[in-house]
Amino acid sequence: MKVQIGISNRHVHLKQEHLNILFGENYKLENIKDLNQPGQFVSSSKVTIQTEKNEFKNVRVVGPIRDYTQVEISKSDAIKLGLNPPVRDSGDLIGSSPITIVGPEGSVELEYGCIIADRHIHITPKQMELYGLVGKEKVNVLIPGEKGGIIFNVNLKVSEQSYFELHLDTDDGNAHMIKTGDIVEILEGDNNVWKFRW
Amino acid sequence: MKVQIGISNRHVHLKQEHLNILFGENYKLENIKDLNQPGQFVSSSKVTIQTEKNEFKNVRVVGPIRDYTQVEISKSDAIKLGLNPPVRDSGDLIGSSPITIVGPEGSVELEYGCIIADRHIHITPKQMELYGLVGKEKVNVLIPGEKGGIIFNVNLKVSEQSYFELHLDTDDGNAHMIKTGDIVEILEGDNNVWKFRW
Repeated sequence: MKVQIGISNRHVHLKQEHLNILFGENYKLENIKDLNQPGQFVSSSKVTIQTEKNEFKNVRVVGPIRDYTQVEISKSDAIKLGLNPPVRDSGDLIGSSPITIVGPEGSVELEYGCIIADRHIHITPKQMELYGLVGKEKVNVLIPGEKGGIIFNVNLKVSEQSYFELHLDTDDGNAHMIKTGDIVEILEGDNNVWKFRW
Repeated sequence: MKVQIGISNRHVHLKQEHLNILFGENYKLENIKDLNQPGQFVSSSKVTIQTEKNEFKNVRVVGPIRDYTQVEISKSDAIKLGLNPPVRDSGDLIGSSPITIVGPEGSVELEYGCIIADRHIHITPKQMELYGLVGKEKVNVLIPGEKGGIIFNVNLKVSEQSYFELHLDTDDGNAHMIKTGDIVEILEGDNNVWKFRW
């Protein structure tokens, strides 16, 4: 079945303690744009993410506050920063890359917390049933176009509070020349190409 | 069958007239490293590629001199430069993007010449026979790994003077987390997934 894409640029999620250090006590994230996932929003706050090798300024903080601080970057970003982060699901941070976050009021040196987000689809339990995906953890997705192809290892993130959407990072977006709002196809049944995996 | 990857970063090919303008009369490209394709080499010369929006400095000139001047960039580069170049085979430049090349001695404003290089495999006529590819213009290629998948529209560039190798740009390399020297697999026969193309 068809699914809409959302391309995620590098961004940061913060826990309360780190928000306070970076932006000061009593600071609140301001919602300047709702994201499609319920409750998630682009905030007006930006930070610098930094390693010994390089830095990116103006990296957006995505709200609301979470239980963990997490920096999501692409492989291209990782190369520029001199990092080798693992591909991970949100919140699965043990053993991920160290990185420093710098805000206007302070900085936080994370021992770990920097990941390359896995390719994932936000989906409800009801949609899992409706689309015949119950029991599957991952799917392959067909991307049309001149630089199209099939991407493997797309994680099904099942939650009641989900807007049905495939999230990819900017490397996947640019390599396939696709953008937020484009439509791609989840492969299932006879279209499944798991057999091609090594 | 298996094939080795070469990842190409942004680079420039120059015709004699433009070499003279950019680097001065009687300038010769110096070979500092042979590339795998016979006769092709990394030169010591670098230029800046420029648009009204942005620029990249230290872009490598790949030798030898060609009959045409061509700037090869990735989609990520294109976004930063504010360009929308087509995906093209080398030398197929009519209607491609305008760009300015700046060298130490002068600059060249190209009306067209900037492309995103197509995914392509350098292969000899003999290898085409050996691998059962005669008659095919394009193949699909399986990329292993955590961010693996299948890439479509991989152009077979048949020439007697070829080193068997798959060339991808940095976007494709980073999206799939692969690097120069990695091994991938050309899909053929029953493994062909052309049927999945839109």
